[in-house]
Amino acid sequence: MNAEIIAVGSELLLGQIANTNAKFISTQLSELGINVFYHTAVGDNAGRLKDVIEIAESRSDLIIFSGGLGPTKDDLTKETIANHLGVPLVFDNVALTYIEEYFAQRGREMTENNRKQALVLEGSKVLANHHGMAPGMILEQNGRTYILLPGPPKEIEPMFQFEVKPKLAALLNDGGVIVSHVLRFYGIGEAELEVQVQDILDNQSNPTVAPLASDGEVTLRITAKANSENEAWDLIKAKEGEILNIVGEYHYGNNDDSLASKTVEMLLHNKLTISAAESLTAGLFQSELAEIPGVSSILVGGVVTYTEQAKVTQLGIEKSFLDEFGIVSSECAAAMASKVRQKFGTDIGIGLTGAAGPEPHDGQAAGTIWIGFSIGDSDPITRKLQLSGMRNTNRIRAVKLAFSYLMRLLHEKGYEKV
Amino acid sequence: MNAEIIAVGSELLLGQIANTNAKFISTQLSELGINVFYHTAVGDNAGRLKDVIEIAESRSDLIIFSGGLGPTKDDLTKETIANHLGVPLVFDNVALTYIEEYFAQRGREMTENNRKQALVLEGSKVLANHHGMAPGMILEQNGRTYILLPGPPKEIEPMFQFEVKPKLAALLNDGGVIVSHVLRFYGIGEAELEVQVQDILDNQSNPTVAPLASDGEVTLRITAKANSENEAWDLIKAKEGEILNIVGEYHYGNNDDSLASKTVEMLLHNKLTISAAESLTAGLFQSELAEIPGVSSILVGGVVTYTEQAKVTQLGIEKSFLDEFGIVSSECAAAMASKVRQKFGTDIGIGLTGAAGPEPHDGQAAGTIWIGFSIGDSDPITRKLQLSGMRNTNRIRAVKLAFSYLMRLLHEKGYEKV
Repeated sequence: MNAEIIAVGSELLLGQIANTNAKFISTQLSELGINVFYHTAVGDNAGRLKDVIEIAESRSDLIIFSGGLGPTKDDLTKETIANHLGVPLVFDNVALTYIEEYFAQRGREMTENNRKQALVLEGSKVLANHHGMAPGMILEQNGRTYILLPGPPKEIEPMFQFEVKPKLAALLNDGGVIVSHVLRFYGIGEAELEVQVQDILDNQSNPTVAPLASDGEVTLRITAKANSENEAWDLIKAKEGEILNIVGEYHYGNNDDSLASKTVEMLLHNKLTISAAESLTAGLFQSELAEIPGVSSILVGGVVTYTEQAKVTQLGIEKSFLDEFGIVSSECAAAMASKVRQKFGTDIGIGLTGAAGPEPHDGQAAGTIWIGFSIGDSDPITRKLQLSGMRNTNRIRAVKLAFSYLMRLLHEKGYEKV
Repeated sequence: MNAEIIAVGSELLLGQIANTNAKFISTQLSELGINVFYHTAVGDNAGRLKDVIEIAESRSDLIIFSGGLGPTKDDLTKETIANHLGVPLVFDNVALTYIEEYFAQRGREMTENNRKQALVLEGSKVLANHHGMAPGMILEQNGRTYILLPGPPKEIEPMFQFEVKPKLAALLNDGGVIVSHVLRFYGIGEAELEVQVQDILDNQSNPTVAPLASDGEVTLRITAKANSENEAWDLIKAKEGEILNIVGEYHYGNNDDSLASKTVEMLLHNKLTISAAESLTAGLFQSELAEIPGVSSILVGGVVTYTEQAKVTQLGIEKSFLDEFGIVSSECAAAMASKVRQKFGTDIGIGLTGAAGPEPHDGQAAGTIWIGFSIGDSDPITRKLQLSGMRNTNRIRAVKLAFSYLMRLLHEKGYEKV
């Protein structure tokens, strides 16, 4: 079964909203093992919509529409499909009653154009909308399946999950399942990772292995088809083992993990508390940790020392020390890490200092960043970064690299990875 | 000129990412007055990409591609276009040198597949990529314009703004211009704003006025067509005046302004320094300020006091005080603001404390947040928020509201808005 998703709405073509419905539906179809070969977005225009439907019919057997089911004149998805397929629109009494009740409950008068939302394609399976007024529809015609869904994400998402997905699963039910698993890597470029696992990428069949890079990370998605979920997981685990044998040192987590969430997990697991002194990142390192629920057992707090004066008065670093080594220096990052660790009484202290850009800072080029790690009573360890992004990309990457280095350093010191 | 945007990448069809590039490019084209009639997304498959190109050629004269210019075998956009149009790929020396330097600077070995990124369509105008390795291209052929752009948003956005947009504007230059201006509002809902400016929305022709809500903000985009830029701006300024007469009190900035950038501008203009003590936001307030270049004249720093103990030891708030009033309280927010202002010697101190969620904190429901403002020697002022979002939405909204309240409080105290 090959699917195509057609989003209808001029607001997409004007760039007012992104086509998140196509993303959502694609994820859902991918979980069912249905191939999606095309996404299309088209405006509220019957002629162009009809053309798009004809193209879709020439290449796909499952055509899913989102949007254009509402009460206004611009909403013309079902009218265009009805016209194109020669299927009349008829009132659905359940939907009509629901819409009338909706207005009655709110004490608002129901205008005539709202009745239009209860019109459905004759012979279609009507899908209840529990979060809005326009019902969805599934129509089987000429060997193709047409699914019409409303545009607002809060309506389409539950309708797809609870109404559409079980029906598609039943249509597909040949006893097979598809399972996907994403491996996340950091500290290696996409091209380099691909070279290292080239043999696996060249000789894939089932499971398949697909690389994807974003935000300085690289992921590999392993997807297995099998007769049962257990069998699919066996295939995935075997392939995962092969991959991690080669590039395991860069692997930090799976699926929805982030560098921050894995750092928090590792600190919780090893019962290590943390504090940070931040200059160019100005609180971003700590804020990213605080995104993770449960962080209060390990994050005590820290300081933002944006100016030189704040480094002196708040951390107690000597002015003469900063004059000698510079603010953007290994020595300064190490001192910030040690001082904040002592001040907050934590197991770990992190120091972040550098020139975020666009201007050089303290004689150092934009993108020069030092990170200090003070772990227990050992001498602090520092890492230098030379980044080439814009100001905020540099700040964000510095924080990601701090998490990545911290996990590696802790692992090297014998703390367990999770 | 009718445009179509083709995004290439299997990750879109798997639902791993949303097609935000199509949204971004559409907004930009809309500002230029170019109609976008279709968005298409297609996977990393030469045959299907070729089909999609042929369909686009049958209905559009400007075809913009995003993605598929990278180093891996999956990246086949330019190869497919080259093959389809019969245009050879040649090495671009500037791009090749840039890629070689990129690796040399990082001390990493350049693998052979990275060279492929410097291949461009012969005869195309090459667009420099200052945030990645793959250059973009503009090719004029058979009366159509093909524009090839990289996939990562941080690469495509500056490339479009600085390289593509001026070239398209020049292509379009028939003496008429289109100018857009966005007004940004905070502290008013979309529906309420729309009701207040209903007459303007109902009677628009040139300029047009379009509302859009996102992330707790509402914007109004004013777009004017005229024979000259000056004439367009006169139309826009007149309409802006009408709008601000009605809802000016909620207006905080225009175009690319953010609440953080306007706060920084106002503090710079009034020469006011700031520090913050953050609990639930854990550095996010300071980090957002630090996104703005030039902030070092006004942001001294601050503390993250995530635990109760840190509030006591780092800010010198008495334990008995916290026991009496609670951590999530007006009193605690006020004390945090005063203490951090004194500790960092700034004109303004901000205190943020609350229950981010998902769990209640210190007996207060998730979403209960207090913000304290200590301005000069006046008594601190506090504001309570009762938010209903998820943990991180609550943290982000608390920071936005802190900026918004701070600007209003300063204005009430007689400081100039900018």
